[in-house]
Amino acid sequence: MASLWLAGWGVLLLSCILGFVVPSAPTYQTYYFDQKIDHFGFYEDSTFKQRYLVSDTHWRKPGGPILFYTGNEGDIALFSNNTGFMWDIAEEFGAMLVFAEHRYYGESLPFGNLSYSDPKYLNYLTSEQALADFALLIRFLKERSEARDSAVIAIGGSYGGMLAAWMRMKYPHVVVGALAASAPIWQFEELVPCNLYYQIVTNDFKKSGPGCAESINKTWSALNRMFKSDEGIRWLSGTFRLCAPLKSQDDAAGFKNWLSETWVNLAMVDYPYPADFLMPLPAWPIKEVCKYLRNPNLDDKQLLQNLFQAINVYYNYTGNTQCLNTSQTAVGSLDDLGWSYQACTEMVMPFCSDGITDMFEPQTWNFEAFSDDCYKQWGIRPRPKWITSVYGGKNINAASNIIFSNGGLDPWSVWR
Amino acid sequence: MASLWLAGWGVLLLSCILGFVVPSAPTYQTYYFDQKIDHFGFYEDSTFKQRYLVSDTHWRKPGGPILFYTGNEGDIALFSNNTGFMWDIAEEFGAMLVFAEHRYYGESLPFGNLSYSDPKYLNYLTSEQALADFALLIRFLKERSEARDSAVIAIGGSYGGMLAAWMRMKYPHVVVGALAASAPIWQFEELVPCNLYYQIVTNDFKKSGPGCAESINKTWSALNRMFKSDEGIRWLSGTFRLCAPLKSQDDAAGFKNWLSETWVNLAMVDYPYPADFLMPLPAWPIKEVCKYLRNPNLDDKQLLQNLFQAINVYYNYTGNTQCLNTSQTAVGSLDDLGWSYQACTEMVMPFCSDGITDMFEPQTWNFEAFSDDCYKQWGIRPRPKWITSVYGGKNINAASNIIFSNGGLDPWSVWR
Repeated sequence: MASLWLAGWGVLLLSCILGFVVPSAPTYQTYYFDQKIDHFGFYEDSTFKQRYLVSDTHWRKPGGPILFYTGNEGDIALFSNNTGFMWDIAEEFGAMLVFAEHRYYGESLPFGNLSYSDPKYLNYLTSEQALADFALLIRFLKERSEARDSAVIAIGGSYGGMLAAWMRMKYPHVVVGALAASAPIWQFEELVPCNLYYQIVTNDFKKSGPGCAESINKTWSALNRMFKSDEGIRWLSGTFRLCAPLKSQDDAAGFKNWLSETWVNLAMVDYPYPADFLMPLPAWPIKEVCKYLRNPNLDDKQLLQNLFQAINVYYNYTGNTQCLNTSQTAVGSLDDLGWSYQACTEMVMPFCSDGITDMFEPQTWNFEAFSDDCYKQWGIRPRPKWITSVYGGKNINAASNIIFSNGGLDPWSVWR
Repeated sequence: MASLWLAGWGVLLLSCILGFVVPSAPTYQTYYFDQKIDHFGFYEDSTFKQRYLVSDTHWRKPGGPILFYTGNEGDIALFSNNTGFMWDIAEEFGAMLVFAEHRYYGESLPFGNLSYSDPKYLNYLTSEQALADFALLIRFLKERSEARDSAVIAIGGSYGGMLAAWMRMKYPHVVVGALAASAPIWQFEELVPCNLYYQIVTNDFKKSGPGCAESINKTWSALNRMFKSDEGIRWLSGTFRLCAPLKSQDDAAGFKNWLSETWVNLAMVDYPYPADFLMPLPAWPIKEVCKYLRNPNLDDKQLLQNLFQAINVYYNYTGNTQCLNTSQTAVGSLDDLGWSYQACTEMVMPFCSDGITDMFEPQTWNFEAFSDDCYKQWGIRPRPKWITSVYGGKNINAASNIIFSNGGLDPWSVWR
C-alpha cells in the first residue's frame, strides 16, 4: 500500500499555483549546461548536460532582471508551458525568462538511460545538488556582460517553490529574492498535524456541492463490501470501465488509493478556468464532479455508479478515453518515479487521515512501513529529519525577500 | 615543487588568532556522536563517530548559551587547548563550551585507518559535510531539555573561522551568530591579488628588526649559488644540522620551500607572549629571529650561517632539537595530509610572490601545474570556482551576526 502512496506523490506535488495557462505556445531557445554530477564530492568528476530554456524577447539589456524558474519533478517544458505568470510579467519587467530543468527529470539525466537503474546512479538526486546546479547555471548566465548587473529572482511552484525559497536561503548571493508558490516547506516531521492536508481537500469538496464530501466518505465502505465477492469485483471492473480488470481482494487497496489520488489531484487543479495541467479539465472541475455526488444515502451500486460518473469528469472530460487506467492519475510529462525516490530519501512527508474530519478512509502514518517499502523499491532508507536540519523547518526568520503564495483551495497551503 | 606547497598549507591555515594559551589544563568530557558519512547522498548510509569535547562547569542551565567551536584541520584537543578565549569567557556568559572535531581529523575518521587510503574514502572530506556534521550535532545537543532555549554561537579560527562564518550563513536556524577569527574567506580565485599574503608576512619581518626582511630576500640567491656545487650542498647540510643531508640540486626547491614555510609560520604565531602552538616559542618570536638577520650585506656563507641561527629560534627554542627535519614545519597534532586534500579539492588558494614587494623568491600562481600535482597525489582535480559559488565570495551582505576578527600582524588578514 505504502508503495502506491509513494507513486502518487509525484503528482501530489504538482499543484502549480503559478499555472495560469500560457495563452499561446511560448517561444524559447533550448540550451544545455555542463554540470558536475556531484557538487559535494570530488571522486565522481563526470558531468552531464542540464537542459534550460531561455526567452529573452522582452529582456531589457543590459541589466534587466532574470526570472529564473527552479525546475521541479518533471520535464521543464511542462512547467514552462504552465507558468503563465512569468510570461505575463516578462514585458512589464523587461525580464529574461529562464526555466532550468531539475536533474534526473526530462532530458537532464546524469547517467542517461541508466540514471534510474541503480541506487548508486540515483545517489545525486537531491535538492542540495539541484540548488547547486541552479547556482552554477546562474553564475554562468551572469558571465555575459549584459547580464552582469541583472538581479535574479527565483520562481517556482510546489516542490519548485520549495527550491525557490531554499535557493534564496542558501544562495542569497545568487538570487536577490524568491517567489515560492504553493511551497509546502512545513510538510516535514511533525511541523503540522499529518491529517490537515486531507482536511483541506475535503473542504474543497464540501464547498463545491451539497452531499459531495459525504458521498465520497461513504464510497470506501461500499467498495470494501463489493470487494468481498468475485461478483462484486467483476461488477466494479465493468462499471468503472477499467483497462485492466480487478482480480481479487488484493487489488482493493490499490484501487482505493487511485481514487484518493484522484480527489487530491482535483483539489490541486480546481482552477476557475479550463486547464490542461494534470488532465484536460473544465473550469471549477470539483463542482462538475460534485454534480454526480449529491446523495450519500444510496445503496452501494447506485453510489458507486455515481462515483464512476464523478471520476469520469477527471479521466474523460474529452470523451476520448476508452477505458480507465488505475496505474496513473495524470497525463503528460510528469515523473512519478523520480519523486518517489525523492520522497524515499529527503522528502519524507507524513500523511494521515481519520475519516471523520476528512472524507478519506482512515490511515495512520507509519514511518517504519514506509521506510521498509522504500528499501524494497530503491535499496535506500529515508532520513526524515534531514530536510528540517538543513533548511530550518519553521525557523527561517534569518531569510529575507521570499514571497510565499498560495491559493485558498490549495491543500498544500497547510504547510505554509 | 607545488606538491610541497600543498603539504605546507595545513600549517599555513593554523593561524589561530583565538589562540591565547589556556592557562591550566582545561577540563572537559569527551563524547562521540554518530554521523552519516554522507549527508548529501543516500547510497552510502554508514555512520562514523565524531568526537566532541564538552565543558559545562560554568553552564547556567537551563538556557545558558552554547559556544560551539567549529573544529578545523587537526586534533580537536589541540584547538581546545589553544582557544583560551572561549575558556576565558565561559564563566561570564554562563556558557557551555563544545569543541567539535572536524571529520577526517583526530579521532573522527569516517573509514578508520582506511580514511586516507583511497580517493573513494576521501570523498566525504568537504566543508559542506563538516558543516552538516555541526548542524546535526547541535540539533542533538539541543534535544536536552536544559539546552532547548540555548543560543548557539559558532566560534572558530583560521579554516575553523571560515567554517564558523559559513555555519551562520548556511545554517542561521542553528547558530544565532559567529565569531570568525582570522578567517580568510576571500582567499579564493581572484578576490584579492595573490601576492598580498606574502607582502604581509614580509611586513611583519620589516617591523621586527632593521635589515631583517632584506636579509631573508638575499638568502634565496645565496642558496641557489650554494646548491650549484657538491661542496656547497655538503656545507649547507652541515651548517643547518639537517637530519637528512641534502643530496643534489634537486633538493633545492624543497629546502627553500621549507624555509618559506618557516617564515610564514612565524608570521602566524608572532604572539606577544610565549606560546606553544606550532612550536614552543618565546614572546614576539620574529623579533628574536631578526636579531640574527641585521646585516644583508654579507658574503653567502656568513649570511646563511646567520640564517641558520635565525630559523633555529623557531626549530630549537627549547635547545633539545638534535637536528633539523626539513620534512616538517610544526610539531603536535596538526594534519597536513588532510589539508593537502582539501586544498586540492575545494580550498584552492592562489599564492604568488614577486621578490620585490615581498622578501620571497618570485613564484607565479600556476593552476594547471597545481591541478596536475593534485591529480598525482590524490587522483582528483581541484574545482577552483566552487567555494565562491557555494559561499558567495565577497557578496555576503545577506548574512548577519558574524564578527570577523584578526590581528594586524596576521598574514591571513588580507583575505578579510
